[in-house]
Amino acid sequence: MYPKIFLDLVEDFKSFPGIGEKTAERMVFSLLDFSDEKLDNYGKNIINLKKEIKYCTICGLLTDSDKCNICSDFSRKKDTIIVVETSKDVFLIEKTGSYRGLYHVLGGLISPLDEIGPDDISIKALIDRIEKENIKEVILAIKSGIEADTTALYIKKLLEGKNIKISRLASGIPVGADMEYVDSLTLQSALNNRNQLL
Amino acid sequence: MYPKIFLDLVEDFKSFPGIGEKTAERMVFSLLDFSDEKLDNYGKNIINLKKEIKYCTICGLLTDSDKCNICSDFSRKKDTIIVVETSKDVFLIEKTGSYRGLYHVLGGLISPLDEIGPDDISIKALIDRIEKENIKEVILAIKSGIEADTTALYIKKLLEGKNIKISRLASGIPVGADMEYVDSLTLQSALNNRNQLL
Repeated sequence: MYPKIFLDLVEDFKSFPGIGEKTAERMVFSLLDFSDEKLDNYGKNIINLKKEIKYCTICGLLTDSDKCNICSDFSRKKDTIIVVETSKDVFLIEKTGSYRGLYHVLGGLISPLDEIGPDDISIKALIDRIEKENIKEVILAIKSGIEADTTALYIKKLLEGKNIKISRLASGIPVGADMEYVDSLTLQSALNNRNQLL
Repeated sequence: MYPKIFLDLVEDFKSFPGIGEKTAERMVFSLLDFSDEKLDNYGKNIINLKKEIKYCTICGLLTDSDKCNICSDFSRKKDTIIVVETSKDVFLIEKTGSYRGLYHVLGGLISPLDEIGPDDISIKALIDRIEKENIKEVILAIKSGIEADTTALYIKKLLEGKNIKISRLASGIPVGADMEYVDSLTLQSALNNRNQLL
């Protein structure tokens, strides 16, 4: 029924997580209201995205150049590294405005089931950096779960005896959330990580 | 913080109705997981969309060619036209499978406030078709509201005395919907259009 290019675009939009047939159709109809110039720029941006985007040769963060803004920023604390799974996590932490150290993007987590071993993610580069850059503190900002726990344990093992402070983000009840909406694993973790008041 | 092309794409995705900053960011991150080939095809489809899509020279429906599938289908009833606002409405009605006549896409509704007059939408072409193609029945499948009512009234006036049956889609309670979730205007309309049972 629909023209071929219309159907092709519906399929393209359906590739995004959480977008089904109806939403995809609605988005392609919206595209028809875009100006010719806007449509052209949008399409070109999509084609060029992966060609223009680079990954920082030091920390692995998404960037325009060879070295990201954070690694090239002389004002940042150079002895602390936050280790994250993806670039997105870096942007999320930067938005809090409460951290002025460095980052390292692993690009994944160790997952034997998905055949992702320690060599498939950026762990060797992390250890090299820690040694060469004289890092004193490593903060693991990776979610909870089997893969994250395995990855955390692996990194911890490699850094044992090197006199480096290692920590992992606290898990617990989100600020402002009602107890009743928190799942029991999170509640259990919040209980284990309780803060002594008196 | 984000690379420029990344931010540009976030803006592009924010142009769709209902897509905000967070969803747009998530979509651009998803794009990074697309294969190079897929990204290329997707971008090209967007650039070519308006170039490849045509509008049927007879009824105004989105199509690949000069004449749409429906207008070229000899098996369809040629004396009945359903008048709709957009191409999307045609696809929606076709999905019901309960109609085998023709269509006419107005491409908008009369709206003095938005400076859209009868000449800005495809009304003249509709009247011409009705006269030339010897149409016997016109079904107005346009939503309710001031603009739709104005448009319906205008078309009705033009067809007066031409011995053509004109109707408008019934408004009422959606099939399967609970009474309590139906707004009072719809309920009022359902009451006015009640079906005699005995």
